[in-house]
Amino acid sequence: MADPRFFSVAGPFSVGEIARRTGAAIGGAGNVELLLRDVAALEAAGSAELSFLDNRKYLDEFRRTGAGAVFVQPALAAAAPVGATLLLTEQPYRAYAVAAQAFYPEPPPSPGIAAGASIDPTARIGEGTAVEAHAVIGPGVEIGQRCLIGANSVIAAGTVLGDDVRVGANVSISHALIGARVRLYPGVRIGQDGFGFALDSRGYVKVPQLGRVVIGDDVEIGANSTIDRGAGPDTVIGAGTMIDNLVQIGHNVQIGRGCVLVAQVGISGSTRLGDHVMIGGQGGLIGHLTIGSGARIGAQAGIMRDVAPGETVLGSPGLPIKEFFRQVAALQRLARKKDG
Amino acid sequence: MADPRFFSVAGPFSVGEIARRTGAAIGGAGNVELLLRDVAALEAAGSAELSFLDNRKYLDEFRRTGAGAVFVQPALAAAAPVGATLLLTEQPYRAYAVAAQAFYPEPPPSPGIAAGASIDPTARIGEGTAVEAHAVIGPGVEIGQRCLIGANSVIAAGTVLGDDVRVGANVSISHALIGARVRLYPGVRIGQDGFGFALDSRGYVKVPQLGRVVIGDDVEIGANSTIDRGAGPDTVIGAGTMIDNLVQIGHNVQIGRGCVLVAQVGISGSTRLGDHVMIGGQGGLIGHLTIGSGARIGAQAGIMRDVAPGETVLGSPGLPIKEFFRQVAALQRLARKKDG
Amino acid sequence: MADPRFFSVAGPFSVGEIARRTGAAIGGAGNVELLLRDVAALEAAGSAELSFLDNRKYLDEFRRTGAGAVFVQPALAAAAPVGATLLLTEQPYRAYAVAAQAFYPEPPPSPGIAAGASIDPTARIGEGTAVEAHAVIGPGVEIGQRCLIGANSVIAAGTVLGDDVRVGANVSISHALIGARVRLYPGVRIGQDGFGFALDSRGYVKVPQLGRVVIGDDVEIGANSTIDRGAGPDTVIGAGTMIDNLVQIGHNVQIGRGCVLVAQVGISGSTRLGDHVMIGGQGGLIGHLTIGSGARIGAQAGIMRDVAPGETVLGSPGLPIKEFFRQVAALQRLARKKDG
Repeated sequence: MADPRFFSVAGPFSVGEIARRTGAAIGGAGNVELLLRDVAALEAAGSAELSFLDNRKYLDEFRRTGAGAVFVQPALAAAAPVGATLLLTEQPYRAYAVAAQAFYPEPPPSPGIAAGASIDPTARIGEGTAVEAHAVIGPGVEIGQRCLIGANSVIAAGTVLGDDVRVGANVSISHALIGARVRLYPGVRIGQDGFGFALDSRGYVKVPQLGRVVIGDDVEIGANSTIDRGAGPDTVIGAGTMIDNLVQIGHNVQIGRGCVLVAQVGISGSTRLGDHVMIGGQGGLIGHLTIGSGARIGAQAGIMRDVAPGETVLGSPGLPIKEFFRQVAALQRLARKKDG
Repeated sequence: MADPRFFSVAGPFSVGEIARRTGAAIGGAGNVELLLRDVAALEAAGSAELSFLDNRKYLDEFRRTGAGAVFVQPALAAAAPVGATLLLTEQPYRAYAVAAQAFYPEPPPSPGIAAGASIDPTARIGEGTAVEAHAVIGPGVEIGQRCLIGANSVIAAGTVLGDDVRVGANVSISHALIGARVRLYPGVRIGQDGFGFALDSRGYVKVPQLGRVVIGDDVEIGANSTIDRGAGPDTVIGAGTMIDNLVQIGHNVQIGRGCVLVAQVGISGSTRLGDHVMIGGQGGLIGHLTIGSGARIGAQAGIMRDVAPGETVLGSPGLPIKEFFRQVAALQRLARKKDG
Repeated sequence: MADPRFFSVAGPFSVGEIARRTGAAIGGAGNVELLLRDVAALEAAGSAELSFLDNRKYLDEFRRTGAGAVFVQPALAAAAPVGATLLLTEQPYRAYAVAAQAFYPEPPPSPGIAAGASIDPTARIGEGTAVEAHAVIGPGVEIGQRCLIGANSVIAAGTVLGDDVRVGANVSISHALIGARVRLYPGVRIGQDGFGFALDSRGYVKVPQLGRVVIGDDVEIGANSTIDRGAGPDTVIGAGTMIDNLVQIGHNVQIGRGCVLVAQVGISGSTRLGDHVMIGGQGGLIGHLTIGSGARIGAQAGIMRDVAPGETVLGSPGLPIKEFFRQVAALQRLARKKDG
């Protein structure tokens, strides 16, 4: 059970109701009336709890689970323990997500302006929006309805936020237009100057950064990630893109829809990503590249050339996946031979 | 045109005036009297706008540009579209920077202490300095003239800032002496304890960190970067050095003048950099190294030995550039042969 | 001498007293009565100052030091300058740490709630605890005795902190149970949602993150590091573990006791570390791995498989240390041959 100091559980829901909400078929013991009171991991779940199997690594835990009901792919259903009701779906993790949202609906913001928040009189704040303590909201800012602006965050002049945006604690935003349902986790930095300067005989000359950050609907940006505004064009994050913690996005970068950037990725200035690009943790891309839609870039990869749509690239410097594994294997054989 | 919600344009300026300010020679259509009202990218610029060509990747955009005037190197001038006035210079990006500063001069801080800022009575704050909402300034702090201290930033006891320093939102600084015209972007952390502890039979013994962070004039430090104070000696950042976002500088590191550290670089304790060293994104250096002036270290490089002045090092573990490319090529050939 | 604007020195202490506190034996000039007034680096120390030699790189500085007394290993004592009193120990850095703590004891917090802090009436705050300006403490929070809560930090509902915890400036914490004597440096983010979502035909479905962050006693977490809460199980950091700056810890990660994670390390979701694991700077681990106790993972290593207890792994993809150096050497030879 989730710690009640931090979470409140809704429900209960019957197996039938969960099946209806998630589109899963009922199998195994098939107890449609069983009342489920919570979600839990396979190894911890009891007879009134709902679990899921999404990774074959945890097949043993599935075999031994005491869960009342489990989301599982039909192909793995045979490993189920006797007595468990199965909720059969090709996407058990997605079904679990939908069910867990039913058990743990996110509480809406408590509308109002906390004491100690500083709000410029020219800012417009939508109905149902909560502004927490010591948040600072500058002139001309427009904030939509039902938003949450976290404590000690700073939203600078002119910034626009859509409806249902959630801004965590200690965030700072400037020069940005942000869509609906966007989530910015604590410590995110959006809209500061990009890393732009020109060399001069006496040092560096700062290049004014005259663009914005434009963020589509349903984007998430992880804790302490940094997104610089454009130098002239905008920095753009497409709708539905998911960005993890400590990610760096340089000026003028354009990211398409539904991309996934894992923690500590860095993308240098003016590089463009298509839609549904995935980049593993700590991957790095130099500037001015074009990465095609559906491309997959491995963890710690170092990308110095354009990547074609759908291509998978690994290593530093990055190589097509087959070539990468050929080189890994060839070097392994070579090292063994030299020993012999 | 830059979004007027965020930027105010000055001017207009004649082509002649821009040439005078930047030292460029006038070529192409040569319309000295043409009034320029703004700067813009090649593909977006209109007949009263000023643009620049700095990267051959964008030569096609140059050929098609509708810009009234363009900074360009003489060697590329032949590709200019008919009717464009050219501003010829060997350093078009630098010239653009100077011109863009004329069109978009940075507004000075609005002097004064915002309501809700907490300022210790023993702190001294220079004339013309602005302290934004909920900033916290500790005992004995000295802040120069015309500085900007961003909202929700914290400047701890004894810290000294020179004139014209700009501190972004949500920054924290302690144990630091900071020069003039330094810019600290949002979320920067300066002066906290370095990662110093000794092993003991019962665990780790914390080593008191008794040094400071000393930052020269004209330094920039990017969003969410972290600079630990020295353990006994100081951590030093030389004048004019440019540090990008999410960079880590360990205790006792000494960085010379005019260095460039791209995003997510990490430098371990007690390593010393000469002047004008450049490190690409995500490059990492272990501790106690000496990196000579003018050295260039590639993106994602892993440096475990000293680097000579002017040397270029790539890869992890880092290799001299020729050796790096030799190894890349040899491995590529080997992998192909093994397939054959 | 440490800058008196930032540090206050205690003492003086006699050589005999320092020997007693650190367990070192007295050698060299052996002046037991000598009064030591401060600690200093070898090259800067004077005749009333205490220094240490911990790294053979600094043997020349040892030979020339003017320090009154020096911690040194017996095996290196012969290089000492005439007149120096030696404090002989196999662990000179540990002894220095203990001595430096005597000269520079950490000042206790100044108890009390600063003006402008926002504290929910249901929060409980222990005796001797200091809450600095504009800190925000939510409902049901429990804070132990003698803690320091830094300016502009945010501690969200239900969080529990043990005694003697130090929270730096601009930190945010939620969904967390934190032990005694833990230090969180400025900008740390603890307890936000992990990177959890499932793919759907229409995009990503957010997976509710229902776990906590549980941090043992005596843990340190460096500036701007991020620790996501568990998805169902908890994210766990074992007692005495040391985490440097800009480190990312994903949801459900379990870290044992006394581990050391150097700056910019990233650990993906559900990976488990035993006790006393060390990971060099910028090292990365994919999710769902098991890393045995005492394993050592090199800087910038990319770990994609389980690591056995005590094993040392280098490179990306990670290899056992011998194999790594064999491959490095084989490739070097190959590249030279191809040139010949």
